[in-house]
Order: sequence, then structure tokens, then C-alpha cells
Amino acid sequence: MIKLGKKDILGIQEMTTDEISLILETAESFLEISTREIKKVPTLRGKSVINLFYEASTRTRTSFEIAGKRLSADTINISASTSSVVKGETLLDTARTLEAMNPDIIVLRHSAAGAPHLLARMVRQSIINAGDGAHEHPSQALLDMMTIKEKKGRIAGLKVAIVGDILHSRVARSNIYGLTKMGARVVVAGPATMMPRDIERMGVRAYTIIEEAIADADVVMMLRIQMERQKQNVFPSLREYAQHYCLSRRHMKLTGPDAIVMHPGPINRGVEISPDIADDPACSVILDQVNKGVAVRMAMLYLLSGGNE
Amino acid sequence: MIKLGKKDILGIQEMTTDEISLILETAESFLEISTREIKKVPTLRGKSVINLFYEASTRTRTSFEIAGKRLSADTINISASTSSVVKGETLLDTARTLEAMNPDIIVLRHSAAGAPHLLARMVRQSIINAGDGAHEHPSQALLDMMTIKEKKGRIAGLKVAIVGDILHSRVARSNIYGLTKMGARVVVAGPATMMPRDIERMGVRAYTIIEEAIADADVVMMLRIQMERQKQNVFPSLREYAQHYCLSRRHMKLTGPDAIVMHPGPINRGVEISPDIADDPACSVILDQVNKGVAVRMAMLYLLSGGNE
Amino acid sequence: MIKLGKKDILGIQEMTTDEISLILETAESFLEISTREIKKVPTLRGKSVINLFYEASTRTRTSFEIAGKRLSADTINISASTSSVVKGETLLDTARTLEAMNPDIIVLRHSAAGAPHLLARMVRQSIINAGDGAHEHPSQALLDMMTIKEKKGRIAGLKVAIVGDILHSRVARSNIYGLTKMGARVVVAGPATMMPRDIERMGVRAYTIIEEAIADADVVMMLRIQMERQKQNVFPSLREYAQHYCLSRRHMKLTGPDAIVMHPGPINRGVEISPDIADDPACSVILDQVNKGVAVRMAMLYLLSGGNE
Repeated sequence: MIKLGKKDILGIQEMTTDEISLILETAESFLEISTREIKKVPTLRGKSVINLFYEASTRTRTSFEIAGKRLSADTINISASTSSVVKGETLLDTARTLEAMNPDIIVLRHSAAGAPHLLARMVRQSIINAGDGAHEHPSQALLDMMTIKEKKGRIAGLKVAIVGDILHSRVARSNIYGLTKMGARVVVAGPATMMPRDIERMGVRAYTIIEEAIADADVVMMLRIQMERQKQNVFPSLREYAQHYCLSRRHMKLTGPDAIVMHPGPINRGVEISPDIADDPACSVILDQVNKGVAVRMAMLYLLSGGNE
Repeated sequence: MIKLGKKDILGIQEMTTDEISLILETAESFLEISTREIKKVPTLRGKSVINLFYEASTRTRTSFEIAGKRLSADTINISASTSSVVKGETLLDTARTLEAMNPDIIVLRHSAAGAPHLLARMVRQSIINAGDGAHEHPSQALLDMMTIKEKKGRIAGLKVAIVGDILHSRVARSNIYGLTKMGARVVVAGPATMMPRDIERMGVRAYTIIEEAIADADVVMMLRIQMERQKQNVFPSLREYAQHYCLSRRHMKLTGPDAIVMHPGPINRGVEISPDIADDPACSVILDQVNKGVAVRMAMLYLLSGGNE
Repeated sequence: MIKLGKKDILGIQEMTTDEISLILETAESFLEISTREIKKVPTLRGKSVINLFYEASTRTRTSFEIAGKRLSADTINISASTSSVVKGETLLDTARTLEAMNPDIIVLRHSAAGAPHLLARMVRQSIINAGDGAHEHPSQALLDMMTIKEKKGRIAGLKVAIVGDILHSRVARSNIYGLTKMGARVVVAGPATMMPRDIERMGVRAYTIIEEAIADADVVMMLRIQMERQKQNVFPSLREYAQHYCLSRRHMKLTGPDAIVMHPGPINRGVEISPDIADDPACSVILDQVNKGVAVRMAMLYLLSGGNE
């Protein structure tokens, strides 16, 4: 059996295809637990998982919390608004303090890229990156890959178009790393102001016109416009953004047959994606992504706890 | 055995007297659990209950959380302040996202009347309305009825006076529906500015003078002045409100013998109710209401989980 | 066997040396649980512990929550920001409401000195003071004593220097009570503006010059500057404070041999303590304090639940 030979899950960039496959396969075996009458297995009984969230989040925090509870772990939530963060403690001191309380895993979301990597070097607990700045969001990419694999039967050989604010998107980065590793052809599209200059070094083709990017795509992955983060005006208006990049019915004629549409959520309807596409069960797999999210996070918690040893 | 043939508990308006009685009787059988040395039964082990609160709350959220935990359910709290709500996601998208994580029950408090009904139609999970705008607050009415039944031996035939801001009170509406269904005679009292114009269509008699309303009443139910919601000045001042509507010792001579005094809490002492009445064990049953609340919510969670099938 | 003949743990001032010893010894026996593969014992299964925090806190709330969970208690967190506090309910009404829900223990942090004592008289549940204003913080003093006992082999006969804002520090007060009871010699040091006038009545010697206080000390306990509370300027600037009171390498030559350095956290690095001292495993026991904290709080919860009867 292949083992996850890691203390932490910090990013897709540093993962091998074997490690990605191991997580995806483990997640598949966990998928069924959430459909049982009794949605709980005793696997991680007596383990403590701390969700340390420096940025607001519903879906990721709730998903990790449910994942932990379904494995019978104790879950403890710490959010920046009610924590010592207001008292000016450094992230590292907070982490060392938590370390001294002997949790097993710390799930960290932080606005600073690299924060989870710093913690991982400094504390002996397993660290899971639940999103660090514009850097990586590995559990999102893993659940995306799991969804693609289920819906399209494979990842290798597919064409995946990622559309939106590539520059600020940790979801885009983690997916580019993961999908290219797993053999997909990835293209990206977005306004020039939202496109990293050296993006093609990541092995992807970049477009500014969405229609060119999604042509013959098997998967169209729309990104969220982080309205709450956008301080500088990177585009004239949301309306203008939507005019050029909002995925709507007409785009679906350009994609490959049976193309699926993804979005990490929460959706800004009519900005990134038109409501009729977001809610169309024939192409939208947005809620499948959420569903896979719990299973992927169960797998991450399980494998880091040495569950498969 | 009568079954609760419902997916959701959205309001008292749509409940039959059989359904109300079933919940009250089930709650009575759960009352004893909270007095045990070990206050926990395995009934809902492996079930997930999400408390999705868009309005601040201590007592209702804590009561549902304790109710869930005493039945061994996993409870997950989501409050608006730390959630995607800040990211502008619609309620429906939030609910569908949660649905995809396979909880069993979603307990929703929302400022918009009808929000739980909308969710109940759109997601397959059971929805419990924990208060929607000025519309309904069914668990409060159920715990109130349970308290009345215990203290007065019955509901049918009693005279119940509800006093205060009837217009904005979901507690009043749910109690009017429930108490009239169960055979009580309900009267309401409050300033004209706080009285719905068509209130008598609900089968109650309306007064503006408290003394007239509480005459011979078996139950006096005082409502909370929602100071944090009152944007428009519906009364000149709190002092003037208290002068006319604050329940005090002198009022207790007008009520029927052994009348009980209720309040959903939190109390504004000296505004709705004088401290000596609020704390008088001879008439105040305010803390009994809280106590029944845990048992009623256990019954709601249990019956919606198909516990009695 | 000595029993903890108390309903509540409100402060070290009212504890006997036997009671302190009992908690410390019980905590020692719990220390090992947090190092197990399965960090959980069924001791408090079916008990409910409410963490009622009116002041922001990470470490204390998290420590109590982990302590409760490792003993299998149900833990319910209530923080002021999401509670009825915003609705203007009195502390006493909140507590009586919680009492009616039949928890077993209420852990209270409050900005008002004496708040836990008030509650303890009014509700039948056990109250643990998790910090009340500038008054007491008994669990902190107990974990400090446990750390000292482990590192120095004893408490009696040691010289302990407490340095910083003595006036506003509940940590200082609880430690002075506890350490003097247990036979240590306690001295305090801090700016005159941060020193209570009658401090020597507590049985300690007071200095304004840190070097004099720490001479030959076995334990140097640095206090946190409560930057978020300091409304009035009690000192010209943080820089000036640090110049006189920041513990640094040069001070460690004045202390007794093998002196240990303590801090309740969170640390303001370079203000109260220089980073090289805070992180020096040869003298700093700051993370040991956190580690002992979970065990001490397990012991407090256990003994108040009648665990040793």
C-alpha cells in the first residue's frame, strides 16, 4: 500500500501523483459514510482537530468540522474575531501555544501566503492548509479533482479551462498544479489585469477571451471574484466583468460535449456564472464539489493521523 | 401511534392539534434526561444538526445545541458574523451547500419571514424554524404550551393574555396559533402602534389597556421589547411604555387566581416586567420555560429524525 | 482521600493548601492522557460544560474546551459577541437561563471583578472563574504552580519574582495568593503607576527596579501588558516600559541558578520579554505552562463534577 509519507498537507505543488491518487482513493472509500443512517465511524476517536481560521469561512470550516466529527474526532474552532489575534500575538506564538495543548492536526486558513508552511516547520502537529492568501488551497483542488474524476471517468487527457481572477486565486493555483500533474491540459482565461505575467511557466496556456479558452473544454472551472478583497480596481465594474466573463448558456455550445461546469463557491450569480447554468443539473457539478469536499477532508484527516498505517 | 408526518417544523400555523400534542408528549418523556447524572442518550448518534443563525441568539441556539448533544447528535454552529454571508452568498446557495454536506437537520434563524419555508422546499433536509422575522417561532410556542400544560394541568379553556409589541412578535403569532388551536381563549394587549390592524382575524380579542386584557387571565405572557430592532419610534419612550405596560404587583390582583407569568426572555427588567414579579416563584414560570425548551427541542429533533418510526 | 469540598472554584484566596494540593495532584494524574494515542477518557460523559466568555480569549477558552472534550464532556461555547449580551440581558438573567438548561459546570470569564462569585451564589451549578476583571484567574495560578512544582521539585522555600503591571493583573493576584500559601517567598516589581499601594499587605515585597526583585529568584514570572485594556496612559510609552522591564539575557545572571522564566501569554515580544529568553529551552517554561493548563482544567472539571467521590 502506498503511504502518505508526509506530516502535513500544505499544497499541491509539493505532492506527487501517487500522493494525490492515494487521497482521492481514500476519499472515495469515505464517500459512502455520509450517506449512511448513522454517519459516523470511530476511526479518529480521541484525536483533536483544531480549525484555526484567520479568515471568515462557512463552507471550508464547516466541511472540515463535519469531516472531523464523522470520523469521531474532537473538533475545536478558533476564529480570528474571538481569539488572541486581537491581542496582537504572532501566528507562531499562537501555534506553539496550541501545540502545547497536544492536538493532532491543525487546519489553518490565513491571509498570508506561506503561513501554513511556516507552522509546519515549527510545530510537531500535522498542518493542513485550508487556504493561504493567493497561494494554495489544496483541499479545494483535491475535491475538484475527485469531482472531475467521477464525472468524466478520468483526469488525464482532459482539457480544463479555468476562468476568472487567476492572479488572486489560490483555487486556480492549486488546481493548475494538480491537474497538470494528473495529466490534464489546463488553459486559463481572464482579464489581463487578473492574469499573472508568468502564468504560462506553470504549464498552462493563457487567454483573455473566454470563448477561446473554453473551446472544446471538458471542464470549465469558474473562479470567484473576491469582492470583499478587491481593494484596487482591477476592472472598471462588475457589470463589465460579467459582460465578458460570466459563463452563460451560449458558452456551452463552444465547449466539448458533456462539459461540466465547476465553481468553488460562494457564487456571485450573474457575475461569474449565470443562474441557469449554475443550477443546470446537466452541466453544473457545483454541489457535487461540496459533497466531495467532506469526503476529501475526511481522507486528509485520516491519512495524516496515520490512519492507514 | 400518531406520527409526525412532516419533513419540517416551520410554524404552528400549519400544525394540527395531534402534531402539537405529539411533540408535547414526546418532550415530556425527554424532560427527565436532563436531570440524570449522565444527561445523554444515544438516540441521534451519527446524525448531524446544523444551527444556522443569521441573527444573534444565546438561549435558542444554546438550547438547540444542548438538545442535540443530549441526544448524541453532532452539532455544528454557523453564525452570520463568521460565515459566507459576508461574502454575499444567497441564503439558498448557503443552504444548498450545506445540503450537499449531508446533515440531517438544519435549524434556521433568519430576519426574513418565510426564509425557513423557502429552504424547506428547496433542500431535502429537515428544516426547523428557530425564528423568522416577525413571523413564527414554533419551538418557543411549543415550550410555552408545555409550560402552561404542566402548570395549569391543561390548555383548553384557559384565558391567556399576551401583552406587548404584538406587531413585531413572532412569539405572539406562534402562541396565538397554537393556543387557539389547543382550545385556549387568547387576548392581546399593547399600544395601538404595536398592534396589527387585522389581529382579531386570528381569533383573539385585542385591547390597548393591559388591565382589561389580563382580567381573570390564567396566563399572562409578556413579550420582549426588541430594543435592538426598533428603528422607528413606535412609542415615545421606554419609560412611557413601562408606565402603561410593565407588569407589576398591582396587576396580579386583576388576574385569575394562581395566574402564571411568562416571558420568552431575555427580559428588560422594569420595562416589560417588574423585577419582583419576574423573580416571584409563586407566579413567574420564566425559568420553567427555558427548562422545557431543551426538552421540546429534543422532541423536535427526535421526531424529525424519524425517531418514532 | 481529601475531597474538594467546594461547589465552585472562584479564586485562590479562598482555597486551602489541601485543596490546592488536591487539584495539582489530580492534574498530574491527568497529564498523561494528553500524550496518549487516544486522548480521551469517558469520565465526564453526559456532563455539560458551558464556556461563557464575556472577554475574547483563545488560550483559556480552548484549554477548557479541550479539557472538557478529553474527559468526554459536552462543551458549549457562548461568547459575548454572538449572545444575548447585545440584547442587554443582565449577567444574572443569562446565568439563570443557562442554569435552567441543566448544565453541570459554567466556566465564566467576565470583565467585572466578582462576577463569578455572584453567579456561584445564585445558581446551583458549579462555577469556575476563568478570569474576572483584575481580580483572580485561579486556573492560571494553578497551572503556574504545577509548572513550578514540576520544574523545581517544590514550591515551598522558593523565591518567586512577579514582574510587570501588578495593578491590573489577575494572574499576579492569584499567584500571590497561591504561592504564598504554598510557602514560597514572593516579590513583585513594576513601575510605581502599576503597583497597588497596599500590595505588601498581601505578604509580598515590592520593588520598582526589576534587577532588585529578581536577584537570586528561582522563578521569574513576567506579566502581560494588557495593551488592549490600557485606556489611561500608565506609562509614557511601550518603548520606555521595555527599556526598564523587558526581561533579557543580562537579567538571567542576577537570578538564582537554573531560574525558570514564566509568562501567562500571549507574549508581547520585546515588551515584556526578549525573544531569545522566551524561546530559550534552558530557562523558558512558557509552553510547559500551556501544557499543564489542559491537565489542571481537566482536574478542576473532574473534581467539581464529584469525580473523586
